Amino acid sequence: MRPPAAVRPARVALALALTLLLPVAGARAARPEPAPLDATAVQRVAERLRAEEEASQGAYARLAWLCDRIGHRLSGSPGAAAAVGWALETMRKDGLKEVRAEKVMVPHWIRGTAEIALVAPVARPLAGLALGMSVPTPEGGVAGEVIEVDSMDALKALGDTARGRIVLFNKAIWRDPEGEGYGQVSPLRHGGASQAARQGAVATLIRSLGTLPGRLPHTGAMSYADDAPRIPAAAITQEDADHLHRLLAAGETVRVRMRLDCRTLPDAESANVVGELRGRERPEEIVVLGAHLDSWDVGAGAHDDGAGVAMVLESMRLLRALDLRPRRTLRAVLFMNEENGVRGGKAYAADHAAELLRHVAAIEADRGAGRPLGFSVGAGPGGAETVRRLAQGLAASGATDIRDNGDGGVDISRLRPAGVPLVGLRSDMTFYFDWHHSEADTLDKIDRAALRDNVVAMAAMAWALAEIDPPLPRTPSP
Amino acid sequence: MRPPAAVRPARVALALALTLLLPVAGARAARPEPAPLDATAVQRVAERLRAEEEASQGAYARLAWLCDRIGHRLSGSPGAAAAVGWALETMRKDGLKEVRAEKVMVPHWIRGTAEIALVAPVARPLAGLALGMSVPTPEGGVAGEVIEVDSMDALKALGDTARGRIVLFNKAIWRDPEGEGYGQVSPLRHGGASQAARQGAVATLIRSLGTLPGRLPHTGAMSYADDAPRIPAAAITQEDADHLHRLLAAGETVRVRMRLDCRTLPDAESANVVGELRGRERPEEIVVLGAHLDSWDVGAGAHDDGAGVAMVLESMRLLRALDLRPRRTLRAVLFMNEENGVRGGKAYAADHAAELLRHVAAIEADRGAGRPLGFSVGAGPGGAETVRRLAQGLAASGATDIRDNGDGGVDISRLRPAGVPLVGLRSDMTFYFDWHHSEADTLDKIDRAALRDNVVAMAAMAWALAEIDPPLPRTPSP
Repeated sequence: MRPPAAVRPARVALALALTLLLPVAGARAARPEPAPLDATAVQRVAERLRAEEEASQGAYARLAWLCDRIGHRLSGSPGAAAAVGWALETMRKDGLKEVRAEKVMVPHWIRGTAEIALVAPVARPLAGLALGMSVPTPEGGVAGEVIEVDSMDALKALGDTARGRIVLFNKAIWRDPEGEGYGQVSPLRHGGASQAARQGAVATLIRSLGTLPGRLPHTGAMSYADDAPRIPAAAITQEDADHLHRLLAAGETVRVRMRLDCRTLPDAESANVVGELRGRERPEEIVVLGAHLDSWDVGAGAHDDGAGVAMVLESMRLLRALDLRPRRTLRAVLFMNEENGVRGGKAYAADHAAELLRHVAAIEADRGAGRPLGFSVGAGPGGAETVRRLAQGLAASGATDIRDNGDGGVDISRLRPAGVPLVGLRSDMTFYFDWHHSEADTLDKIDRAALRDNVVAMAAMAWALAEIDPPLPRTPSP
Repeated sequence: MRPPAAVRPARVALALALTLLLPVAGARAARPEPAPLDATAVQRVAERLRAEEEASQGAYARLAWLCDRIGHRLSGSPGAAAAVGWALETMRKDGLKEVRAEKVMVPHWIRGTAEIALVAPVARPLAGLALGMSVPTPEGGVAGEVIEVDSMDALKALGDTARGRIVLFNKAIWRDPEGEGYGQVSPLRHGGASQAARQGAVATLIRSLGTLPGRLPHTGAMSYADDAPRIPAAAITQEDADHLHRLLAAGETVRVRMRLDCRTLPDAESANVVGELRGRERPEEIVVLGAHLDSWDVGAGAHDDGAGVAMVLESMRLLRALDLRPRRTLRAVLFMNEENGVRGGKAYAADHAAELLRHVAAIEADRGAGRPLGFSVGAGPGGAETVRRLAQGLAASGATDIRDNGDGGVDISRLRPAGVPLVGLRSDMTFYFDWHHSEADTLDKIDRAALRDNVVAMAAMAWALAEIDPPLPRTPSP
């Protein structure tokens, strides 16, 4: 399904040789200014970045600290506060400018405990996690007969049959580089509870959106519609979902009891963490490098999105250390609250509204640290073609495959209405959902070489986006 | 490392053709009796077994019931009692003879709960399980500085440095078809606590003997030496062991607190479950088909050893249904308590001592339901060669690779002193330790085709061992 890589290393080498050794006199005469930024320039920058990162292993060291010393960091938690402090300190130590915490008010949801059990036709505890933002069960829990669906349409077709029941959303996802299964099924996690509640259900369970067969529950955000009662929602493991399915398929009446004591406290104060490398010619023009600092409250948030945080921090450090100061300002933004509210993304767009016309691009890393495949682009006509041309210099990192799909990342998506061109680092997500939003998203899942390749790809592309003239075409108003 | 398969299908086809079409007159004249049992006969039996199992899927149906309706079944537990009742009922329904429960007194260990936490330099809960047969911690738990070793020799070299410490055995195992990693490292789980206690340690932790990166603790048996204090022992996940390792490698003082309230009750009454197909010529001679009915008290014991139980039950049912009654009696023995005491294996050997000279072979299935690779053999000189010849008829199931390593299986190993030839069904263990002894050992991990191939291999080999004349050479006295 992927188009072939646009450039082979041999061709890059040839282009490099031609550029260095065989300047064409005629072209020179016709164009007295420096040649436009091309893949060769990107390649040279990438080579310097790679050499420095191979020597320093800085991204891994930062990610190790975040995972091993701070750990998970859900919005409003002590971990999130510690992560904000650490990110500020790191940026200052790295010599970034204008380092600051930009205040964001965030939802403050507390998980508490989950007790979920199959009670008929056999008794068996079920491993589960409340979905993020779920209401608790009533005191004493809730029990009901399980009814299973694999889509929102199937739920709607049940009509009143769901009344008094616990709805089980049971749809498996699968491993693929783009996370397509997750994209297809996650709407059931987000909106399934409200639809079930409209039909009278008392609670919902969902088969975890995970791909590792390790009896591992995966949490994630849900939200309630205004027009429906709020019923509790939890994820169970793929193993337990399969078990319930087999019992139902055998014609059994399957009953589950669940007790969640999660709760939502008043919004808490938190922050986006921001720092800059000032542009050498047009410092008022800005390229944002984004990732999100918060994580779910399980595991260590290594892939989601500690890896992205490490890529952003290390990109900035490398570019400064190598004195690769582009024309425009590079601004690192570590967003808070991507997971359960996107308050950081919204706050940044609102607080910086006056300067968004001077944001020439934003690039985000939020697909874990699988090897880089390329970039997604959301820009005006010709934008994806420009990114494709620049990415030809990243063949050594593998990041040459460009998707013109309008997608940059959740946090920076809030900049789209202002026309800011969006670029997403497309890391390979084949194994991402093995660990995503679970206790198993820990540092040991990080491949150092893949993390390094991502850093090189992100840093070099950010540099190019801040250097190139003209900048990427802006996204037209809808 | 594996020798090449002894026989290729094409050769079997050739042998078959020669047998059917080209009888050698001279050989006939010299041997007026029926030709000795050969691979062709085994192949014909296997083909009938396969056709019937493909149609009935009986092994999977039995295993599904055991996993989904009974679940785990540690010796002394209600699950074990239910499994005994179900196995008796199943054998009777299948028309086996002499169906009975043979009393076995078993250890009765109760897991209770485990609370294990890293308390310095950072606080983090650790996912863990008490090792089976561990003593509890003192009231209020035990805390100590962690000291890490990767072998018994490394522990011994610590000498008095272990005093007052919690010893972490941290040695990763790996995926391989023979489970060699598990074989090498499991002695640390079995005997590590007593050695640590001799050196003054207050508790032990071990990196789970598992190969799936899913934050999944794996339990398993340990035992105490008479000459050492009894200290509590638990398994933690590979992720948490890696985390502790990184902190120690960074020079940190790492402290853990743990509280286990497991306990051992007085021995409980349980049973081996036995049933027979009476031999047509020499019913007093016996071939045992064994597996173990107990499991650890997590997951559903699907691979360990529900699969073996299903193979034994289904082998007996198929052979009877197809009227494949061999010369000698086939005796199914579903052993109790393989996991934490081998009391079933010991009791069978003791209670049947008087007839062990009439046991012409025993074959056990206790390596999960990965595809069959062949058999291991522990018999007198020439025994492995005979099994290799017979197994040439099992090329369609893949079970042609014979290892002359003396190993048949834990339960039947107790028959070795009486000279009983032992045969182990060698199922591929590449992924077995992903799930073994963990909450993830559930029915969804079973590949139906591989389970069927195992049933065909076990049933056909058991039939052949009960049919062949002379029988396998007995194991000589040591």
